[in-house]
Amino acid sequence: MAISNRVSAYLSTSSAIRRMFEEGLALKARFGADAVCDFSIGNPDVPPPAAFRRILREEAAVEEPQVHGYMPNAGHLFVRDAIARRINALQGTDLDSRHVVVTCGAGGALNVALKALVNPGDEVLACTPSFLEYRFYCENHGASFVTVPGRPDFDLDVDALAAAISERTAAVIVNSPNNPSGRIYPESTLRNLGRMLQARSSAVGRTVYLLGDEPYRDITYGDRVPSLFAVYPHTVVCTSWSKTLSLPGERIGFLAVHREAEDSARLLEACALCNRILGFVNAPALMQRVIARLQDEAVDVEVYRRRRDAMTAILDAAGYAYAAPQGTFYLFVRSPLVNDVDFVDRLKDERILTVPGSAFGWPGWFRIAYCTDEAVIARSADGFEKAMRKAAGA
Amino acid sequence: MAISNRVSAYLSTSSAIRRMFEEGLALKARFGADAVCDFSIGNPDVPPPAAFRRILREEAAVEEPQVHGYMPNAGHLFVRDAIARRINALQGTDLDSRHVVVTCGAGGALNVALKALVNPGDEVLACTPSFLEYRFYCENHGASFVTVPGRPDFDLDVDALAAAISERTAAVIVNSPNNPSGRIYPESTLRNLGRMLQARSSAVGRTVYLLGDEPYRDITYGDRVPSLFAVYPHTVVCTSWSKTLSLPGERIGFLAVHREAEDSARLLEACALCNRILGFVNAPALMQRVIARLQDEAVDVEVYRRRRDAMTAILDAAGYAYAAPQGTFYLFVRSPLVNDVDFVDRLKDERILTVPGSAFGWPGWFRIAYCTDEAVIARSADGFEKAMRKAAGA
Repeated sequence: MAISNRVSAYLSTSSAIRRMFEEGLALKARFGADAVCDFSIGNPDVPPPAAFRRILREEAAVEEPQVHGYMPNAGHLFVRDAIARRINALQGTDLDSRHVVVTCGAGGALNVALKALVNPGDEVLACTPSFLEYRFYCENHGASFVTVPGRPDFDLDVDALAAAISERTAAVIVNSPNNPSGRIYPESTLRNLGRMLQARSSAVGRTVYLLGDEPYRDITYGDRVPSLFAVYPHTVVCTSWSKTLSLPGERIGFLAVHREAEDSARLLEACALCNRILGFVNAPALMQRVIARLQDEAVDVEVYRRRRDAMTAILDAAGYAYAAPQGTFYLFVRSPLVNDVDFVDRLKDERILTVPGSAFGWPGWFRIAYCTDEAVIARSADGFEKAMRKAAGA
Repeated sequence: MAISNRVSAYLSTSSAIRRMFEEGLALKARFGADAVCDFSIGNPDVPPPAAFRRILREEAAVEEPQVHGYMPNAGHLFVRDAIARRINALQGTDLDSRHVVVTCGAGGALNVALKALVNPGDEVLACTPSFLEYRFYCENHGASFVTVPGRPDFDLDVDALAAAISERTAAVIVNSPNNPSGRIYPESTLRNLGRMLQARSSAVGRTVYLLGDEPYRDITYGDRVPSLFAVYPHTVVCTSWSKTLSLPGERIGFLAVHREAEDSARLLEACALCNRILGFVNAPALMQRVIARLQDEAVDVEVYRRRRDAMTAILDAAGYAYAAPQGTFYLFVRSPLVNDVDFVDRLKDERILTVPGSAFGWPGWFRIAYCTDEAVIARSADGFEKAMRKAAGA
């Protein structure tokens, strides 16, 4: 057997979710894609803004020498400068180009930051429900991903995080707006978190880093997303334009380090080095140039709001309980059956594809990704209603 | 200290080379970039072919739904199919889309393949002189990078590799055309290598993989680059369009697995998973579409040939010995001083920047990257001559 033991184990354990996707594909093959309501994946279908399409065409026509060549591993200086200025304008920070590393999406940014920060045997903490890809990202660099349950209202449980912090803790990951709950963590919670991290860092004798994962920052419905930089100095924020501009396949994002973070200059040097040696080398050159000119652009969030409202109306009518979504394009819904995997199977019988909450460390719930056509949402009403009726009767 | 111990150590030990680059920058700042002959880095300056520029503009104008969205982690099927067909046409293989994973450059491909293949404590072998970034790539995934000296004529030393193979050996990396020597390993050597790997795999009770790193395959001066797939079934070839199309900043490449490789289907599944969980997720979407249409294009190698000839004429006149370059845009030159780092310093005094052979595990030599303007090459003649004269007098 030539495959790494760990990766082999990943392939076996991830087979449950993969089987679900394969069954979804089989459903589409059998009944036609139009007969299946696929709410399983977060692949945004709202088109990028017109400004993106225009600027991409302009930048693609640029023929300056080495426009597609290497640049510093941290990214073009003018790109990092544009990013720093936007963060400053929106979050009241005082960053400059030196505090930014342009990356291959948020997934790239998180891997770079984790490689720069963790030692083998370290732990990285988060509250559930949580995007569980973090587990792989931590294990890539020899750390463990440890979760504690969030609060019943999907806020962070700062006390639970505090209790889990030890001298092995390298970082706490905070993802707001949250995938899957759509929750924006309130400023008061984040202030508590900052105070707690300061106190616990002193107590355990190690600076615990705060890692923000914020790809949904621009997909919100009225509530502001408070800045992590404002609550704690030892903060690295990772994000991308995947959702802001509907470009997840282009792999363009960044990480930004707080000016006052411990040893920030060396940490940024470490991040640039890790960007190189993990094989990213640098974020894609053309997209760097494109996003530098699109700092104030975002997709039309009203489209997502209409879909959210259409979907919640369907759920309300059928009697489902769900977390009030403040951001993202996800709805996190209480399963009428205790076993969320069973209920997701029942929904599949109605040709509706969703993801069980167990996949986010939060059993008893399931996730709907409503980055899909409104016709599909409308078509799903009967199925949601039927599945609820059958579950209530069961 | 918040930074990973290993990355901290990397930052300290790499400081010698970094200092050299910084001194180079300082030289340029002091005397003007035009007064410095920079042969230190392999950032190709030959423009991408006209077909690339045309097709990039066409693809940038495409506005199909989700054209910038996620696709399968291994890449668009039509892109993988185009790549497989080209390998088949040029190397007589029988690959199809299933055997190809599109990646963020060759650096991404190597990291994905290594993560899929190695267990902590494993070893990965190569002959020097060798691109030493491989060491980081191996250590990223818990393996060690072990080198054995190549032959004095810069061919692989198959016997030395054989002697170094143990039950800990996961793979052997072969980079042809070679950075820094410009050597294309001959077919007879590769046949020996294949036979040796088969025999040693049986002897140690483990399939030792052959990892090809071939980003310079299309930058050659008359000699053919033999196919690794033809000599050994347990082969993964990693490469990119960075040099073929002068696109190193765009991060587009692929890995291809031999159809007969042990457990190849599961290995390819593992590679797609690793592409995702290392944070690459997938190769940049737009560039995937672009390179799918450019399978028969390459930069004008005649430009590199003229420079190579201009540079070797200068070296000949000044009395330097060097490896006859069959491919790449590097010249590997014998240092007139035993200590190559000292001689590279002397060249710096002449405002010529090169890289010591020590950085490739081959002290006593130095590397010239001639992917630079012919005027710069011409201007360097006096400096190379003076440095040689002083070294001979010393």
